[in-house]
Amino acid sequence: MRAVYCDHGLGFCDAYPDPEPGPGEALVRVSLAGICNTDLELVRGYMDYRGVLGHEFVGTVVGAPDPAWLGQRVVGDINAACYQCETCRAGRHTHCPNRTTLGIDRRDGAFADMLVLPQANLYAVPVAVSDEKAVFVEPLAAACEIMEQVAIRPVDHVVVLGDGKLGLLVAAALRLTGADLVLEGRHADKLALAQAWGIAVRTGEGSAASRAADIVVECTGSPAGFSRARELLRPRGVLVLKSTYHGELALDVSGLVVDEITVVGSRCGPFAPALRLLEAGLVAPTPLVSAVYPLDEAQAAFRHAARPGALKVLLNPALAP
Amino acid sequence: MRAVYCDHGLGFCDAYPDPEPGPGEALVRVSLAGICNTDLELVRGYMDYRGVLGHEFVGTVVGAPDPAWLGQRVVGDINAACYQCETCRAGRHTHCPNRTTLGIDRRDGAFADMLVLPQANLYAVPVAVSDEKAVFVEPLAAACEIMEQVAIRPVDHVVVLGDGKLGLLVAAALRLTGADLVLEGRHADKLALAQAWGIAVRTGEGSAASRAADIVVECTGSPAGFSRARELLRPRGVLVLKSTYHGELALDVSGLVVDEITVVGSRCGPFAPALRLLEAGLVAPTPLVSAVYPLDEAQAAFRHAARPGALKVLLNPALAP
Repeated sequence: MRAVYCDHGLGFCDAYPDPEPGPGEALVRVSLAGICNTDLELVRGYMDYRGVLGHEFVGTVVGAPDPAWLGQRVVGDINAACYQCETCRAGRHTHCPNRTTLGIDRRDGAFADMLVLPQANLYAVPVAVSDEKAVFVEPLAAACEIMEQVAIRPVDHVVVLGDGKLGLLVAAALRLTGADLVLEGRHADKLALAQAWGIAVRTGEGSAASRAADIVVECTGSPAGFSRARELLRPRGVLVLKSTYHGELALDVSGLVVDEITVVGSRCGPFAPALRLLEAGLVAPTPLVSAVYPLDEAQAAFRHAARPGALKVLLNPALAP
Repeated sequence: MRAVYCDHGLGFCDAYPDPEPGPGEALVRVSLAGICNTDLELVRGYMDYRGVLGHEFVGTVVGAPDPAWLGQRVVGDINAACYQCETCRAGRHTHCPNRTTLGIDRRDGAFADMLVLPQANLYAVPVAVSDEKAVFVEPLAAACEIMEQVAIRPVDHVVVLGDGKLGLLVAAALRLTGADLVLEGRHADKLALAQAWGIAVRTGEGSAASRAADIVVECTGSPAGFSRARELLRPRGVLVLKSTYHGELALDVSGLVVDEITVVGSRCGPFAPALRLLEAGLVAPTPLVSAVYPLDEAQAAFRHAARPGALKVLLNPALAP
């Protein structure tokens, strides 16, 4: 099969070995896959990953232990956990120390004609959710993870920092809480997109360090974003970290103590609520699509995804190059 | 009156002006006051504080707007808030931006014959609580603050890092949750004290980086303590920061995101629960007293408090030098 892989850089192979499902695993033909910032970082060496890239996908089951899955349109939880260890038994399978992660850690990913995942990781996609929407389930689930971790009340003042694709999806999900939400970013076109979803936006320039936000969600992945979050947060506020950072960050930890700030690291989230939000039309992510490329043109697709201003770039294995 | 003050170092004055209560304020004759690590830091320049030191005290009301307070034995909330601003109205008076803080920030403190606090800050000390116990209300309230912020369940594995006076008091308070608690420290005599309270202890040497703790409370105030906390915490664990740090700390923020760690800064706490725990005998802090000095011998008392191995050093204005 064809596959886009990472091995000290980005590669494409049109004769990659077909994936072979192990016990309990399903074989999925990929319909559409999305390029995430994590993919760009993996190509730069993050996690020292080698293998097929891609963890955002929608596809069709072509092989499964339970024949009821055959032909189903699916998305899939990217964390393949053991469900045996203490962490899994405690309900935290996304942190299983024995897990592999689709396209990120010791498990070939979705930028290929086919992929393999445990059947237990699959979620059937409702008819009302098109492939173009379903490919956003994984990042939207990551946005929903914030609500799993932090009680966001309708009276809260919430700021989302960063108007990249993650910040936009986070804002789209948090909007539904009824909170007094504002998305702070730097790109007029991206902010306009959020505005079209009914989200209040601002550029942050000239905005005072108000110390009035109850919750700030940091989606810029830059040290400046962390500092800005601290400026905006009230004492006893909650700072949600949704992005990873390169290297270490020097922090005023005493300030966190004096102001009794809570910092919450936030990663993968629950798929079922994300699917429900898409099915109900409460989140409509397709305006985030910047481009769709054939699988064979992955190099161009990655260059596009890395361009300033780009949002979601998709790979479609069925498209002719 | 006599007063121990901070002005680019530690000073003693036997003719310091008597404090004059403003509207709504009470005048308190100090019976006993405790030296806290914050006092040692203030002398070293923290907060750039100038004025009478001391924020842990018990005393007797000798002047108050409401005569019912006269003669009462009291402790007092150290944060003198405005109760007018949005922060106060939201119930977060300890974070009032207009607050002064007893012996820490623009308000003369308790290492003196007398002090002044708003009458609203006072708490009557029950008969069953001796002065030697009551002087621990302020740091015990700070320990109780952890339970205000974090739900500690009886099934949780909790580690308190640091066997200084704060770590010991925190462990004494958290023991009451029924959680599987261990105090990790470096001093056999201090750990023995905790053991006498029925708290499991260990030195940490040879202890594996188990990643099994649900909650770690950092009371060492050292960067090594932060690293150790991360080693001990499970994914989605909670790291409570109870100590301030000098300067900035370089942190692996991505690790916080990947492991979805919650970091909670924790400072001043509620006085009423601390008084209840002392009255019921559920926390018995007097073994923490290393020495009691006359007010006039504050220099010696501060040297004692700064010695390795020292726990709580008290100042008693009624003691003859």
